[in-house]
Amino acid sequence: MRKKVAIVGMGFGGIRAARAVAGQGHEVVLVDRNNYHLFQPLLYQVATAGLEQESIAQPIRAMARGWPGTRFHLAEVSGVDFAARQIRTDAGEIPYDYLILGAGSVTNFFGLESVERHAFDLKELADAENLRNHILTAFERAVIEPDPARQRALMTFVIVGGGPTGVEFAGALIELVHFVLAKDYPDLSTHAARVILVEAKDGLLASMPEKQRQYALRKLRRMSVEVLLNARVVDAGPERVMLHDGAVIPAHTLFWSAGVKAAPVAAALEVPRTTGGRIPVEPDLTLPGHPEVFVIGDMAYLEQDGAALPMIAPVAMQMGSYAGRAVLAKIAGAPLAPFHYRDKGSMATIGRNAAVASAFGLNFQGYPAWLVWLLLHLYYLIGFRNRIVVLLNWVWYYWFHERQVRLITRRGSSSCCRLAASGEPADRE
Amino acid sequence: MRKKVAIVGMGFGGIRAARAVAGQGHEVVLVDRNNYHLFQPLLYQVATAGLEQESIAQPIRAMARGWPGTRFHLAEVSGVDFAARQIRTDAGEIPYDYLILGAGSVTNFFGLESVERHAFDLKELADAENLRNHILTAFERAVIEPDPARQRALMTFVIVGGGPTGVEFAGALIELVHFVLAKDYPDLSTHAARVILVEAKDGLLASMPEKQRQYALRKLRRMSVEVLLNARVVDAGPERVMLHDGAVIPAHTLFWSAGVKAAPVAAALEVPRTTGGRIPVEPDLTLPGHPEVFVIGDMAYLEQDGAALPMIAPVAMQMGSYAGRAVLAKIAGAPLAPFHYRDKGSMATIGRNAAVASAFGLNFQGYPAWLVWLLLHLYYLIGFRNRIVVLLNWVWYYWFHERQVRLITRRGSSSCCRLAASGEPADRE
Repeated sequence: MRKKVAIVGMGFGGIRAARAVAGQGHEVVLVDRNNYHLFQPLLYQVATAGLEQESIAQPIRAMARGWPGTRFHLAEVSGVDFAARQIRTDAGEIPYDYLILGAGSVTNFFGLESVERHAFDLKELADAENLRNHILTAFERAVIEPDPARQRALMTFVIVGGGPTGVEFAGALIELVHFVLAKDYPDLSTHAARVILVEAKDGLLASMPEKQRQYALRKLRRMSVEVLLNARVVDAGPERVMLHDGAVIPAHTLFWSAGVKAAPVAAALEVPRTTGGRIPVEPDLTLPGHPEVFVIGDMAYLEQDGAALPMIAPVAMQMGSYAGRAVLAKIAGAPLAPFHYRDKGSMATIGRNAAVASAFGLNFQGYPAWLVWLLLHLYYLIGFRNRIVVLLNWVWYYWFHERQVRLITRRGSSSCCRLAASGEPADRE
Repeated sequence: MRKKVAIVGMGFGGIRAARAVAGQGHEVVLVDRNNYHLFQPLLYQVATAGLEQESIAQPIRAMARGWPGTRFHLAEVSGVDFAARQIRTDAGEIPYDYLILGAGSVTNFFGLESVERHAFDLKELADAENLRNHILTAFERAVIEPDPARQRALMTFVIVGGGPTGVEFAGALIELVHFVLAKDYPDLSTHAARVILVEAKDGLLASMPEKQRQYALRKLRRMSVEVLLNARVVDAGPERVMLHDGAVIPAHTLFWSAGVKAAPVAAALEVPRTTGGRIPVEPDLTLPGHPEVFVIGDMAYLEQDGAALPMIAPVAMQMGSYAGRAVLAKIAGAPLAPFHYRDKGSMATIGRNAAVASAFGLNFQGYPAWLVWLLLHLYYLIGFRNRIVVLLNWVWYYWFHERQVRLITRRGSSSCCRLAASGEPADRE
């Protein structure tokens, strides 16, 4: 029997759910507020002038052509009427028989209002473009700034969060300054630029083995990133950042990657939620009491082996595939084993020829990890043309120490802060 | 003797002036409000989802590395103090001994206020991204629009101006709809989409020979572009366009390429101006009474053989080179012949394998013209990496009938009109 399957959110989970249910004779509706799937792990390379924003996004309709029986609906979901089995959106209601919810996460500022107002984050394509514009504008202002203290503050970048995003962004940013901008600004003491990585725990990359964590720390420090461990940012203004111990860092740029929480739509569902606004799900990823509704990815809370599954892309991908198959199994009346996450490891790149990896049962670092990181990211990037453009940019950078996309594309977006730059109200809870 | 040479505007004229004066022992200051040189002739391909915006811009600092003795200054020029020989900018004063002014042009709406409010134009990178977002959003709205009349209006695009920009945009847009979007929206009658080209004269491409003009008209009509000759747009709203004869076209998109006028900074100079706000110059391109100030490109008004030189890139390029050489000649006390524009012809592409050209003393059209158009645009595009990315996109489109950059990158920018979309106040006189 032909059923209506709706999938909300075309992130890593949603597109894998779509692949699984498409072409099985059901009516599949894909819903997203953007018309593209975004490869978030490379946003930091857009922000550091290494990649075009277009090269890490793939139009959903381009993917949907290969998924028979699917329709795409560009809409922002405001809630779900579970009784009537309808999704409420800003572009009308969408009925469903089965629903897969994977709207992802937003940045968690843990209630630090001044930080939320003045920090940049990287969740959306426009965030990356805004941050790139801001960084490049800071250097343009620095080069004509007569006051040495203000000049240094313009070239000081505070990055909060020593997870993969913070580490990768710090490495990419310091390389941008030392390899590329140093040549662009011969009159500017770019060696005085500061990249400060602030981490609350006593080490970086908490999910990695000790040896790789040490390697990452050593490598970043050798690249002259100032890594502050056991430190927290507690307050921020447009030109300064304050740490937990009262120390004030004059800095015009604050980047926050210290946490995420479930997307606001999770709150709108009026169902029980737990840590990080996440929705606890049954072992088959369904909403308790609603066997026809699946919650996947960063929005879902599920424990395995006594610990909550992390809010990362591999979990979302595996949950998406599972939910797609689970819907088909339910329609067919077939049994399905509970969801089980297979941890394939993690990796982070630090700079040229330098990365750390814990994957395939191996822990390794340096050049081999860097090469594996490149290949895996190219592999997971959607769209063959995107892969070529990204590879071209990487080769270019590797050979010529050159990042071509150092364009300030929006003149208005150079002001102090994230909310001003984004040009739209923050969609946070 | 070492002199200070300031060049305002890094368009086609400015960069050629910079090339000419750089490395001759003088201090050269380049000024632009953007940090990149923009290849404006391909903006329409960004707007029609064919190219990444980054691929048609080149960072000025990247170019300036090859120009010894030059400095770049990111600033918006507000005026010139000719007596004190200083440029006034939003980032301080810049002194000069010789000044080359080439700030280009802005769109001329000829006082049609409702049109200015509701029409899109293509002068800046952000314009192209905004227009692309608007076009793609119109189709997303059309596919869920129950009212057939409103659906058709969402898919109706009125283009004003039958010059190269209007013709190229019309061709690229109808191909986007028929070749690409038709596959993206299988549920939508994309063949009902209308692309209407409105031209006030009795033919397209006024600067081309008659045979090529006829070819362009025939070809566009065969591609089902509705070409209205001897017609003018006199009024516009967010969902309709009114013609001179009172006819009203329900359309959500109005694109204006019917004229340009000198950039607002020309007015701020407080010097005599003429048609289109342009500044009349001496035969050596200097400002009357100011042999140390050159005005080039769209801002300059100069007659040759009884007619004003047109506001097009080749004129700006030749004027830029001349002004650069003229500055050196003046410093050296050497004589220099007056500026003479060599018309190398013009061309316009209409669609796949179809273009018209009047160049190298030959008039031709069809596939040869199309090929020459492609090669010349690749040649004049600045930046080797840009050329590769643009070529890749063109090959991709040619082989697969596919344009990958159909991303709605800014959710806020989908609303009715240009001024709302641009997110910044219009910088018009």
